[in-house]
Amino acid sequence: MRKSVPLLGAFLLAGAAAALEVAEAAASRTKAMPHPDLIDDLVAANRILSDQGVVDGFGHVSVRHETDPGRFLLARSMAPGLVSADDILEFDLDGNAIEPWGRALYVERFIHSEIYKAHPDIKAVVHSHSPSIIPFGATDVPLRPIYHMSSFLGAGVPVFEIREAGGAATDMLIRDPALGAAVARKLGGSAVVLMRGHGNVVVGQSIEQVVFRAIYTEINAKLQAEALRLGQGEVAFLNTDEAAKATATNNRVLSRAWELWKQQALRPR
Amino acid sequence: MRKSVPLLGAFLLAGAAAALEVAEAAASRTKAMPHPDLIDDLVAANRILSDQGVVDGFGHVSVRHETDPGRFLLARSMAPGLVSADDILEFDLDGNAIEPWGRALYVERFIHSEIYKAHPDIKAVVHSHSPSIIPFGATDVPLRPIYHMSSFLGAGVPVFEIREAGGAATDMLIRDPALGAAVARKLGGSAVVLMRGHGNVVVGQSIEQVVFRAIYTEINAKLQAEALRLGQGEVAFLNTDEAAKATATNNRVLSRAWELWKQQALRPR
Amino acid sequence: MRKSVPLLGAFLLAGAAAALEVAEAAASRTKAMPHPDLIDDLVAANRILSDQGVVDGFGHVSVRHETDPGRFLLARSMAPGLVSADDILEFDLDGNAIEPWGRALYVERFIHSEIYKAHPDIKAVVHSHSPSIIPFGATDVPLRPIYHMSSFLGAGVPVFEIREAGGAATDMLIRDPALGAAVARKLGGSAVVLMRGHGNVVVGQSIEQVVFRAIYTEINAKLQAEALRLGQGEVAFLNTDEAAKATATNNRVLSRAWELWKQQALRPR
Amino acid sequence: MRKSVPLLGAFLLAGAAAALEVAEAAASRTKAMPHPDLIDDLVAANRILSDQGVVDGFGHVSVRHETDPGRFLLARSMAPGLVSADDILEFDLDGNAIEPWGRALYVERFIHSEIYKAHPDIKAVVHSHSPSIIPFGATDVPLRPIYHMSSFLGAGVPVFEIREAGGAATDMLIRDPALGAAVARKLGGSAVVLMRGHGNVVVGQSIEQVVFRAIYTEINAKLQAEALRLGQGEVAFLNTDEAAKATATNNRVLSRAWELWKQQALRPR
Repeated sequence: MRKSVPLLGAFLLAGAAAALEVAEAAASRTKAMPHPDLIDDLVAANRILSDQGVVDGFGHVSVRHETDPGRFLLARSMAPGLVSADDILEFDLDGNAIEPWGRALYVERFIHSEIYKAHPDIKAVVHSHSPSIIPFGATDVPLRPIYHMSSFLGAGVPVFEIREAGGAATDMLIRDPALGAAVARKLGGSAVVLMRGHGNVVVGQSIEQVVFRAIYTEINAKLQAEALRLGQGEVAFLNTDEAAKATATNNRVLSRAWELWKQQALRPR
Repeated sequence: MRKSVPLLGAFLLAGAAAALEVAEAAASRTKAMPHPDLIDDLVAANRILSDQGVVDGFGHVSVRHETDPGRFLLARSMAPGLVSADDILEFDLDGNAIEPWGRALYVERFIHSEIYKAHPDIKAVVHSHSPSIIPFGATDVPLRPIYHMSSFLGAGVPVFEIREAGGAATDMLIRDPALGAAVARKLGGSAVVLMRGHGNVVVGQSIEQVVFRAIYTEINAKLQAEALRLGQGEVAFLNTDEAAKATATNNRVLSRAWELWKQQALRPR
Repeated sequence: MRKSVPLLGAFLLAGAAAALEVAEAAASRTKAMPHPDLIDDLVAANRILSDQGVVDGFGHVSVRHETDPGRFLLARSMAPGLVSADDILEFDLDGNAIEPWGRALYVERFIHSEIYKAHPDIKAVVHSHSPSIIPFGATDVPLRPIYHMSSFLGAGVPVFEIREAGGAATDMLIRDPALGAAVARKLGGSAVVLMRGHGNVVVGQSIEQVVFRAIYTEINAKLQAEALRLGQGEVAFLNTDEAAKATATNNRVLSRAWELWKQQALRPR
Repeated sequence: MRKSVPLLGAFLLAGAAAALEVAEAAASRTKAMPHPDLIDDLVAANRILSDQGVVDGFGHVSVRHETDPGRFLLARSMAPGLVSADDILEFDLDGNAIEPWGRALYVERFIHSEIYKAHPDIKAVVHSHSPSIIPFGATDVPLRPIYHMSSFLGAGVPVFEIREAGGAATDMLIRDPALGAAVARKLGGSAVVLMRGHGNVVVGQSIEQVVFRAIYTEINAKLQAEALRLGQGEVAFLNTDEAAKATATNNRVLSRAWELWKQQALRPR
């Protein structure tokens, strides 16, 4: 693979002398460099979501800058399963890349920028076409938590219809800040918003949490559809209290799954 | 991966001199050391259940101590697919870890301790969120044996509703001995008990048997759901005699499957 | 893995001198040694059926001896995915192993022996619990050819009910010649016979053909069930002429699939 | 694997001297050699379609010659997953191989030749038995775009019934130019045509596009069937404008998926 101006990657990978030099150049571009661990985690998140089948050639995951809440990190336009540290770019909350150096950007980066702008508590965002979720966006059957792993769905899962904000003749994409803001509004206080004929967006307070949620939303969709058929529509879901309490518990054990997924996604092939 | 006080692992792996020294230290903590083969089998069971999709980042498998029936072996809190010999801890039947040395414990270890306490004949326990089984716990369709491999389901498969024992606002987890005892009572003389909105527990007379049962319960759930749709509810299940006789036969050939699963799960990647 | 008296394996693998010696010993046990290529193909068939998900830890595949029609080759009792050349044994048509040398035998070898006895034209047999086929054995929905790859189903797919030949309290297994003969009768002139609550048997004129049929019977079952749901019962199947003609055509291109499956199954891991 | 007269392969792989010699021999056979990159892409397409489950041992992909529109490139008769550069042959629009040198040809090459003849704008063709699509060919449920990735289905997906062109007793194959021409007519201006009891054909303006379309047609079929069940027949599909605009957008980002699929398909095992 060609490397196009691997500035950030060079900083991360280079020896001490070169690193200093690059650091001086980079200092002017942002108020604070993101911590290398955050970038490593974002790369792992890209690989995990691909390995687990949440994303394929398309979809993306971002994280808010840990010291500068007006910035977030997101890969250049490419398949998540191929992302490395030097593919990570920094963006402001209008969706502008800080130093793109000619690299292509995701058309739908405004999903991320507008959600970070509207929801200060959100620290990480996944957009995907996660397969089992697509049918829920195309019908009026609401996604609900069938077991404790997906209890975060208990806050409700709204469906974004792009025809309301963009009219009946869009290319379905969230290609400008206005559409991004409409998605952010529809999301409200939920963890997940579906997009009719397109995919979904999952949000969280950390990379680990948003990856956990994206994976278990996919699994829940599959199991819920199966249960609805098996029970001919009669299914016992988690109630509101159960969902809230299970979510609090799960948040304390996210790393157990993260370590497994990371080992599976990053193993040499 | 960091190794946190790999005491048991050191015993298993060290040379003769070091082993003696550690054995003296360990002698005071338990009446009898478990046989290394039992620990190896428990590690293999963890890896197999992960490789076969019965567990993901969550779920656990335990075995009763072979010479001290008041003790059982279970990994520290971690994904089963990553468990090694030095992650295995010893517990008493109140769910206390003998020498945790600061390692995190599974919140739900009481599933295991209370089942071993209530059912002296049970030697091994699997708790999982095995996916195809979840819909059966969320509907009133009973799990039944569709073919001879899952004939052990012929003893009936009860469903545990945590609201009965824990009220309508739990986090769904079996986080204390009282809830564990309620699961053990619901299990009764069956091989499997489902947990609404959560998962299931499978028990057996050996590690090989409990792994066999956990895997074929998952497969049966998938095939039974499919058959119910295909036959529009009309499905021929094994009768009681067929189920009992097939179970006796299967118990004599468990190792045939175990050897394959072990080779697949432990192959280098 | 322990090797128990790998006589045949030694013949295949040993140098010239040792081979001669073993050949003399073996000469007395059978009228003619099977050609090493036939054994290699049978080993490949075991591995392919496992790799393609037709068999798991259970199931078996056999081939009739190419020069002695009163003999057939079948592995000792073990998971097909682990079979090597020195695990292959020779049997007579009563299901007796010629030189078992203490090795365990499949309980259900009488499926093979009785089919070879009743049907001289059949040269290879697969018995499996191929998952998607199980629901068709447990309901009264007939398996029919949904596309040309599974056109051999056009000859009809009978269902064997063991209660007719063995009563209502068997362990479901074909554990004696009488039950094997009942399966062979039910098979008749078809390529496949289903076994209620158990699995199926596929037959063919060669190892390549029987493997092809076993794999496409599994795929057909999955696709037919899906089509019946999609079309709400209205599905266009191949007619009798189409099925017969497509079968004749497929028989000329079996090796195209065999080469791929073999490469996938035997690749080093 | 045996190599049978690897003429084209030799040209691609040999040193300068040998290449010249072969080039002289080849010059007489075609007006212009295809660019090596085109052959590499066609090999990658074969491997990708196999790796993604669109083709198994059967199915094929071709590309029109980039400078000679009366010629196209297609592998010799073999499983797509095993195709290498020296397996690629050149054909004219009557389905004649230019220099087959005794190599076996796909019986159904007339699908390709007749589509290239009838549709000058089409540059690449995939024929497959892609599994999830089979049920749509066997029922009267039309395939429609459930999300933007498969928006190219918005142009309609006709079903080819071979009984109309070939009578009720064919072997289901497109084994002559007349049947190929009937498929080309049925295709019309669509991107995909289904074949009852057989498979489907996907066309595109480039190898990357046709591979993208073949993969997302398979995914769409699976998700559409699922959505129809979930919504009990009520499903929101992309409308005509949305489908057309999304298709234009997707055509600009095809390489994002292609790079991922290629890396996955060509990785050493």
